[in-house]
Amino acid sequence: MSLFRASVPARVCLQRAPWSPSSLSPPTFCPLPILPSVPAISSRFMSSFHQEPHKLLVIPGPIEVTDEVLYANAHPSMSHVSPDFIPVFGDAIRMTRDVLFTKDAQPFLIAGSGTLGWDQVSANLVEPGENALVLNTGYFGDSFADCLRTYGATVDELLAPFGGTVPLAEIEAALKAKKYKIVTFTHVDTSTGVLSDAKAIAATVRSASPDTLVVADAVCSVASEEIRFDAWGLDVVLTASQKGLGAPPGLSILVASERAIKTFESRKSPATSYYASWKKWLPIMEAYESGNAAYFATPPVNLIYAYHASLKQITKSSVSLEERLRLHKESSQRFKKGAEGLGLKQLPLDGSVAANGMTALWFPEGLGASDLLPRLAQRNVIVAGGLHKDYKLKYFRIGHMGVSAIDGERGDLDTVLAALTDSLAEAKTKKA
Amino acid sequence: MSLFRASVPARVCLQRAPWSPSSLSPPTFCPLPILPSVPAISSRFMSSFHQEPHKLLVIPGPIEVTDEVLYANAHPSMSHVSPDFIPVFGDAIRMTRDVLFTKDAQPFLIAGSGTLGWDQVSANLVEPGENALVLNTGYFGDSFADCLRTYGATVDELLAPFGGTVPLAEIEAALKAKKYKIVTFTHVDTSTGVLSDAKAIAATVRSASPDTLVVADAVCSVASEEIRFDAWGLDVVLTASQKGLGAPPGLSILVASERAIKTFESRKSPATSYYASWKKWLPIMEAYESGNAAYFATPPVNLIYAYHASLKQITKSSVSLEERLRLHKESSQRFKKGAEGLGLKQLPLDGSVAANGMTALWFPEGLGASDLLPRLAQRNVIVAGGLHKDYKLKYFRIGHMGVSAIDGERGDLDTVLAALTDSLAEAKTKKA
Repeated sequence: MSLFRASVPARVCLQRAPWSPSSLSPPTFCPLPILPSVPAISSRFMSSFHQEPHKLLVIPGPIEVTDEVLYANAHPSMSHVSPDFIPVFGDAIRMTRDVLFTKDAQPFLIAGSGTLGWDQVSANLVEPGENALVLNTGYFGDSFADCLRTYGATVDELLAPFGGTVPLAEIEAALKAKKYKIVTFTHVDTSTGVLSDAKAIAATVRSASPDTLVVADAVCSVASEEIRFDAWGLDVVLTASQKGLGAPPGLSILVASERAIKTFESRKSPATSYYASWKKWLPIMEAYESGNAAYFATPPVNLIYAYHASLKQITKSSVSLEERLRLHKESSQRFKKGAEGLGLKQLPLDGSVAANGMTALWFPEGLGASDLLPRLAQRNVIVAGGLHKDYKLKYFRIGHMGVSAIDGERGDLDTVLAALTDSLAEAKTKKA
Repeated sequence: MSLFRASVPARVCLQRAPWSPSSLSPPTFCPLPILPSVPAISSRFMSSFHQEPHKLLVIPGPIEVTDEVLYANAHPSMSHVSPDFIPVFGDAIRMTRDVLFTKDAQPFLIAGSGTLGWDQVSANLVEPGENALVLNTGYFGDSFADCLRTYGATVDELLAPFGGTVPLAEIEAALKAKKYKIVTFTHVDTSTGVLSDAKAIAATVRSASPDTLVVADAVCSVASEEIRFDAWGLDVVLTASQKGLGAPPGLSILVASERAIKTFESRKSPATSYYASWKKWLPIMEAYESGNAAYFATPPVNLIYAYHASLKQITKSSVSLEERLRLHKESSQRFKKGAEGLGLKQLPLDGSVAANGMTALWFPEGLGASDLLPRLAQRNVIVAGGLHKDYKLKYFRIGHMGVSAIDGERGDLDTVLAALTDSLAEAKTKKA
């Protein structure tokens, strides 16, 4: 699929043949011509670039990305203060806002893994000794709490049952019992595929403790789950480039509300990190967005080009962002139904807390990772094992974000289901 | 130049025609066939990949990089725990050691800008209240001191005269007057082109205060200046991917001595950063090097492929690392002589403190950045303006690292000198 093939009529071929576990042929779907508002990078050789043949990567990030994104990542070296690069960085900042449906929140695009977002929150928004409440749905809740403590926060955790979320009533009770500077939650916990209700959590915090900042770790949800930053009253959404945002890994992406920025600006003590300090980065982001260069640390220029290319496909193509999110949900339901048809049970306790960009499945009775994952790999399908400390050998994870979710022409999820079907049959035969 | 063109006989065509300011034709030079020890990435389409035509980038980083490196940066998405990726990461760690002539020091490869190296040093090696001595030769000395203070160090600075270095006697005196946990210096200060004598500084510290750790900010010197990590007794060399190492920006690269690691391990208080914590990263680096996957934060997979491709060209091609360093010196001398022939004076106070990977030049009397830099850009040559806070409008900077320095066939420096010659003449005519 070339997302730059502008001759295809938009929004005409969005019909899919209804999918069923027995019909694994790829449904038809249309390519996504880019709308003309953000010009493509000049590309003399783009048409001849195709990524190397490779196994289908369907882990919950990094995900499959388009040729256009990879080609942008191979952009010739550019000065980070070049007049050609500045508007690319500026547009990437603006389009990041668009993905979260926010008008004025402040994006930070910094070289780093998604993890760096935790440091940004911990070092800029919480002063040593202040209270933080972590809604813990798995591995990433543990780690965020660890990060907050590193920077001196006093952390309380509300632990969700494995496969479930923290009940809103517990959050409300905790907020009424103690004053918290921030509440953090993992929107989609990549370790379990559990989806928390971001809108309801934000509403609960806003109502029970209006001054408390609401921080969403959305590494595995931005651009695959709906996030209405302004409408829901979120204060921080932190994420990374290699999941729903469809670019290579290496970019920490964080969006902060005006309230969060004000909280930072009214700190009594200085930020407790240097590299993650918003005092350093805020003027840089403001400069690039206003069309000027500024220097604190060299940005990852090529990756910004790649992220920009992916953002164009997400926010400026003929398939709207809303449609993209709907397609993620639809693909997820199709995939989960297919897995169910194969007798595989989901890890999330019920469908309402299951992510739309990934699926976590228990291994069937008697089978484990070594029975299934190598067989899938032999069929050129790469999935991920478990990650939660107590259960990691008992389940596996499939990512279906970005092109794998929205481009039916690729047939990625049908390929995965077919490989799963064969691998399960083979593994059961061997064990029998 | 294709560095993978293995049919060219190695070490035969290393002769250059002697260069003089009046003969600007590109000297002949040979391509660098990769020796067979580290296999190339499988590349079905590599032969058809050529980077887009672009202006010649000769700022002191990011630098021009090879097609092979950019193609590796466009590698299809891969799992960060894939058996195909693990040895690439492991080899990148090993080859990083090779570049610094160290046998056992510990590399850290982390998504981030070079700046993150300062956080690693400040958060892992200095405990709050401990003393650090910064040898300050410009912008980057100021910033390293700022970073150390952010993490609670008590910092003293020895300021070099503008364009010069800190006298060894001053370092010795400071170390005898007070106990310092670390001494830091900027090997090449990118803001001024001043080269400090790393070997002599290390020897001075070792002799005057054997327990003090010697930390080199070598962002603008690794792979363009000689650094003998073990022989000189260095404790930390920190750098980034986008300068002499010839890859896109976005990777923080740091190498720590056994002594530095022991210092870290015997801390009384925990590391004061989460993302930059060696407690988190050390097991990851050890795992990948030993052929196993481990997870703390998703590594920048594509950039590791690109860095790996560049490291192969640096450490495994027919031009040895020693030869590469010699060629940097030779190119630098040729370029500086050419600039001198045009009446341009160097910023460093004398030749012995001038870097080999970049040149900082005062604008001629009566001319400024706006007279010269746009004229160079019109001639497709991108150089950098000044960066030092007091003098930034009075000088400019040219980078000559990596392929621009060692691949005479490209003729990059001749192109720059020709463009400088024309631009100066035109600017002077306009002003006259």
